[in-house]
Amino acid sequence: MFRVNENYLKLPGSYLFSTIAKKVAAYSEEHPDSGIIRLGIGDVTQPLTEPVIKALHEAVDEMASAETFHGYAPDLGYAFLRDTIAKEDFAARGCDIKADEIFVSDGAKCDSGNIQELFAPDTKIAVCDPVYPVYVDSNVMAGRTGDYDPETGRWSSVIYMPCTESNGFVADLPEEIPDVIYLCFPNNPTGAAITKTRLQEWVDFAVKNGCLIIYDAAYEAYISEEDVPHSIYECEGAKNCAIEIRSFSKNAGFTGVRLGYTVVPKELVFGNASLHDMWARRHGTKYNGAPYIIQKAGVACYTEEGKASIRGLVSYYMKNAKTIYDGLKDMGYTVYGGVNSPYIWLKTTDGMSSWEFFDYLLSRAGVVGTPGSGFGPSGEGYFRITAFGSYENTLKALDRIRSI
Amino acid sequence: MFRVNENYLKLPGSYLFSTIAKKVAAYSEEHPDSGIIRLGIGDVTQPLTEPVIKALHEAVDEMASAETFHGYAPDLGYAFLRDTIAKEDFAARGCDIKADEIFVSDGAKCDSGNIQELFAPDTKIAVCDPVYPVYVDSNVMAGRTGDYDPETGRWSSVIYMPCTESNGFVADLPEEIPDVIYLCFPNNPTGAAITKTRLQEWVDFAVKNGCLIIYDAAYEAYISEEDVPHSIYECEGAKNCAIEIRSFSKNAGFTGVRLGYTVVPKELVFGNASLHDMWARRHGTKYNGAPYIIQKAGVACYTEEGKASIRGLVSYYMKNAKTIYDGLKDMGYTVYGGVNSPYIWLKTTDGMSSWEFFDYLLSRAGVVGTPGSGFGPSGEGYFRITAFGSYENTLKALDRIRSI
Repeated sequence: MFRVNENYLKLPGSYLFSTIAKKVAAYSEEHPDSGIIRLGIGDVTQPLTEPVIKALHEAVDEMASAETFHGYAPDLGYAFLRDTIAKEDFAARGCDIKADEIFVSDGAKCDSGNIQELFAPDTKIAVCDPVYPVYVDSNVMAGRTGDYDPETGRWSSVIYMPCTESNGFVADLPEEIPDVIYLCFPNNPTGAAITKTRLQEWVDFAVKNGCLIIYDAAYEAYISEEDVPHSIYECEGAKNCAIEIRSFSKNAGFTGVRLGYTVVPKELVFGNASLHDMWARRHGTKYNGAPYIIQKAGVACYTEEGKASIRGLVSYYMKNAKTIYDGLKDMGYTVYGGVNSPYIWLKTTDGMSSWEFFDYLLSRAGVVGTPGSGFGPSGEGYFRITAFGSYENTLKALDRIRSI
Repeated sequence: MFRVNENYLKLPGSYLFSTIAKKVAAYSEEHPDSGIIRLGIGDVTQPLTEPVIKALHEAVDEMASAETFHGYAPDLGYAFLRDTIAKEDFAARGCDIKADEIFVSDGAKCDSGNIQELFAPDTKIAVCDPVYPVYVDSNVMAGRTGDYDPETGRWSSVIYMPCTESNGFVADLPEEIPDVIYLCFPNNPTGAAITKTRLQEWVDFAVKNGCLIIYDAAYEAYISEEDVPHSIYECEGAKNCAIEIRSFSKNAGFTGVRLGYTVVPKELVFGNASLHDMWARRHGTKYNGAPYIIQKAGVACYTEEGKASIRGLVSYYMKNAKTIYDGLKDMGYTVYGGVNSPYIWLKTTDGMSSWEFFDYLLSRAGVVGTPGSGFGPSGEGYFRITAFGSYENTLKALDRIRSI
């Protein structure tokens, strides 16, 4: 008799974005001419750059002829892309990451959701609070998180590491030693970055205590400050304790194209088990490689022309981020993020809760953001605004907020 | 202290295709002018069809402009594709499958590997022998299969259902009742098809015993006979017991493009758990949708022009299959498959084992196929040849085998 994986049933409904959608729909119906501006989601709005478009067309043409057709891709990615990543994203920053430690995938979300398959069933994970929900939810599905307390919004077996104003939204080292630590810098949702010195403390902690760090660097391209590391492998010892996940979504605008990669160093051996070999086996068994045409688009991001075009894209969004950050600050708001990140983390005013502030901004300015409490209890009293809109809409949104 | 998922360590090495590669490389080195013909792998060789290429170019152009750019796709797939699949693959065959029961993905391999996440930890699975290795390996990784016996090549907690000459390579109903039954028709590797009458027996068995059937119909496009069902939902009651997995790889040649889909009917409710809702939650948590441009390529397969072009592609490979089947039969070989399938399942001669026959064919004819024993113990004494080569190479391979 078939029975289901009951861990799935423990998951509370994913209400955040559906609640937002309902509130926005209700408001639009009452105010059909309001012209709502959405600065809530993390999706990009600007088109793919010209070198990427060119590479896509060329790869499509290759698929039209038997001589240049590409069938199954290598499970772990084409060498042309892995070699380029090793050179441009790692060797260029002094990180000793080999091409065969890079696993090309269809995106950072899949990888950050799937990576937990390598952990023992009773692994104890630590996450920042607030946090991107995939880390916890994927572990819930595998039965590692204990029970959910709807009052606190927390799972009984998860170690939560608050990120607050007092620690600059960079978690303190946990008192209870976890098995696995999820870190994301520059951070979603707070927009906080971590200095190399502080990241080195995490690496040292992990090495000393035998922890594995899952380092989500999906927003790496937005780093603008010198002392902020682009990769965890800039820290000494990281190859012995860390897996890093990267994305083409937010730098090259690939949210709808789907490309990412994960670095699993060969040094990650626990007992007689190599995480590198295990992840390779997973790719070989449950994955069939990223599409050829999309890997060609990926490698086009690393030519001189490609790099310039992507810098342009990132600059466009960072101009929005600065506009939002400076604008809100001028109005007297307390704002964080936005310097090494496309996310602005705004403190609500007048004691409003995150959801009250959401309603306030929607009803008074027709601007949609994301309530911070949706990312975890420590997000209460905060609000996330993203820089991924068009510049015109970003200016318009600020004007409206200013005139509330 | 981090510890790994030890179930991964139980997996024996995936030696089949690497052993083949090594033997072929050694032979090539000794006989550099032999011009080896590879009819071993299941990858296609012919280019994408013209309507698909056109759709890809158009979709790429859409991504080049902010007005028509597409970011994150809906997790479960674009409505334009799901609606078309519901109409063309199901309604057209009298199957009542709704668009929102269709989950678009990046391929049948991923879906058939991931689907086991919905099963309880102690689920007992039944598989055909020989079998596509993903079904078993993905359950090994989740700890559901007991221990491996290298002597028999079998896992202690898996129910194996032999597919042999005597049952026409269609498994008999198992005596021990499984929780989940994996079926693949037309079959990889044997090329066997199942009649509607016999498939109905499986559906009735599953409904009666509360089993879930995972029905892999990746080779559906190769069905040429009238009484062979294209979907399990042609059988009465299937919506109450079966998930169906489909692919664009072998009909439209998308092995390197990556597109597939899985049907999870809303009727599949076990206790208080809806498999449809669980699969939707999995997609939402661990997946980020198939690329827009590739979903546009997928829907192009269903226009009149697209359908005609794909029929052409399938006909091309089926001409190869007929050529191989008839040619080998003429030479006195006992052959199966090839009628509703691109796979020919050949009985070895003179008491040769599958690997002995592999060496024989390689050394005497320079032709590479796949030893049947690589797919499971009941594959011993058989050999798989695929129709996915070019017609010219297929003819040449047969000439060489004929002149051994």
